[in-house]
Amino acid sequence: MTYCVAMRLDAGLMFASDTRTNAGVDHIASHGKMHIFEVPGQRLIVLLSAGNLATTQSVVSLLRQRLGRDAVNLHNVATLYDAAQLVGSTLKEVVARDASEQQSQGVDFGANFIVGGQIQGEAPRLFHVYPQGNFIEASGDTPYLQIGESKYGKPIIDRVIRPDTPLAEAAKCTLISFDSTIRSNLSVGLPIDMLIYNAGSFAPAKPHRVDGDDPYFNKLRKGWSEGLRRVFARLPDADWFD
Amino acid sequence: MTYCVAMRLDAGLMFASDTRTNAGVDHIASHGKMHIFEVPGQRLIVLLSAGNLATTQSVVSLLRQRLGRDAVNLHNVATLYDAAQLVGSTLKEVVARDASEQQSQGVDFGANFIVGGQIQGEAPRLFHVYPQGNFIEASGDTPYLQIGESKYGKPIIDRVIRPDTPLAEAAKCTLISFDSTIRSNLSVGLPIDMLIYNAGSFAPAKPHRVDGDDPYFNKLRKGWSEGLRRVFARLPDADWFD
Repeated sequence: MTYCVAMRLDAGLMFASDTRTNAGVDHIASHGKMHIFEVPGQRLIVLLSAGNLATTQSVVSLLRQRLGRDAVNLHNVATLYDAAQLVGSTLKEVVARDASEQQSQGVDFGANFIVGGQIQGEAPRLFHVYPQGNFIEASGDTPYLQIGESKYGKPIIDRVIRPDTPLAEAAKCTLISFDSTIRSNLSVGLPIDMLIYNAGSFAPAKPHRVDGDDPYFNKLRKGWSEGLRRVFARLPDADWFD
Repeated sequence: MTYCVAMRLDAGLMFASDTRTNAGVDHIASHGKMHIFEVPGQRLIVLLSAGNLATTQSVVSLLRQRLGRDAVNLHNVATLYDAAQLVGSTLKEVVARDASEQQSQGVDFGANFIVGGQIQGEAPRLFHVYPQGNFIEASGDTPYLQIGESKYGKPIIDRVIRPDTPLAEAAKCTLISFDSTIRSNLSVGLPIDMLIYNAGSFAPAKPHRVDGDDPYFNKLRKGWSEGLRRVFARLPDADWFD
């Protein structure tokens, strides 16, 4: 499996993805799931992917080799809505090509994508593209999207994230959400790729990779774990069962 | 859906289950999912159920109406292992009866049960009975079992529960686990049924129902939420994105 989160906040966008892929427990590998398409000064589009690795890699490869070649590509679509639609149609194209009825043998060829970024003329936007190729957009009511093993790490995000949360705090919350997920689920693993984008900056993307030696991440894990235990220990026990 | 947790600790057993059942979002009702079979002084067997409500109700009804009537029933099985096996075989019987091939129309007739308790001559034991009727037992390495919507509330249990955790603390952790689940998932809802059993006591079971007005639960939710935010606020931000 996979765990990816993205947030569309007042201050900008935050993206994070783990790197573990597995086909059964004896075929585990690391593959980046964050894919950046950018024209600095003009547009940034970030894809996070979850699902069948053959499908997600094909979708990203096709999107990349069509840049500057096809009439419509991620470097010239006018809006992020159009970018989400292009990812969705490419996803449908790949699944239709690979999942022939005779040979699919029960394999799930599906994939989910998060597509976010900013194109000149628009505010930052964020979409979730479903395996069927259709998509939804994050809004002020729900400023974040998750794909993959999303449940373990959802409660902390629900408690902390509001549209006005600063980006650095969003990154902190996201790393805690990953920590909870990694502790409880083997199929999500380090390193984590993170990217912060300040709204309107159109600056070159500088993703940061967080591995097991990362001093900040380790301090955060330890501080969070100890803090939780402290809060837990101070809360009173019930008197129902005396 | 449903959320149920049970723990087998050195001090005894802890059981908890929510009460929400739903078939689609417009058919929501409350049904207890904790079913107690006891002979005070001699045995206590607790079932927690998740899955198809027709199946789980039928299994419990059959187990109950066979008490004192069938040669083998929950009031006379010699071990908790035998109790788990009886629940499993009754589950298979009900599914085989109801899920006829012509009329099942894609409905999932499956159900999961947690079966725990103590029978004179044994230590307390705890089992998870799968929809297939087979089962696993909780051990010192993994002293808890969950069924239903288990992922949201798993991280806090993984962080806190050890075999030597006292029962009152286990109940506190369980309520926090429910709080996280209820906040993030509509299909799990109050009230929560809880039962604590002190190892070797064979005392009459006194379950406690926690509803939305429960002062302790509300204090716990508030204290936990505020404590988490405090810990979160005190942790430093990363300096990667300056």
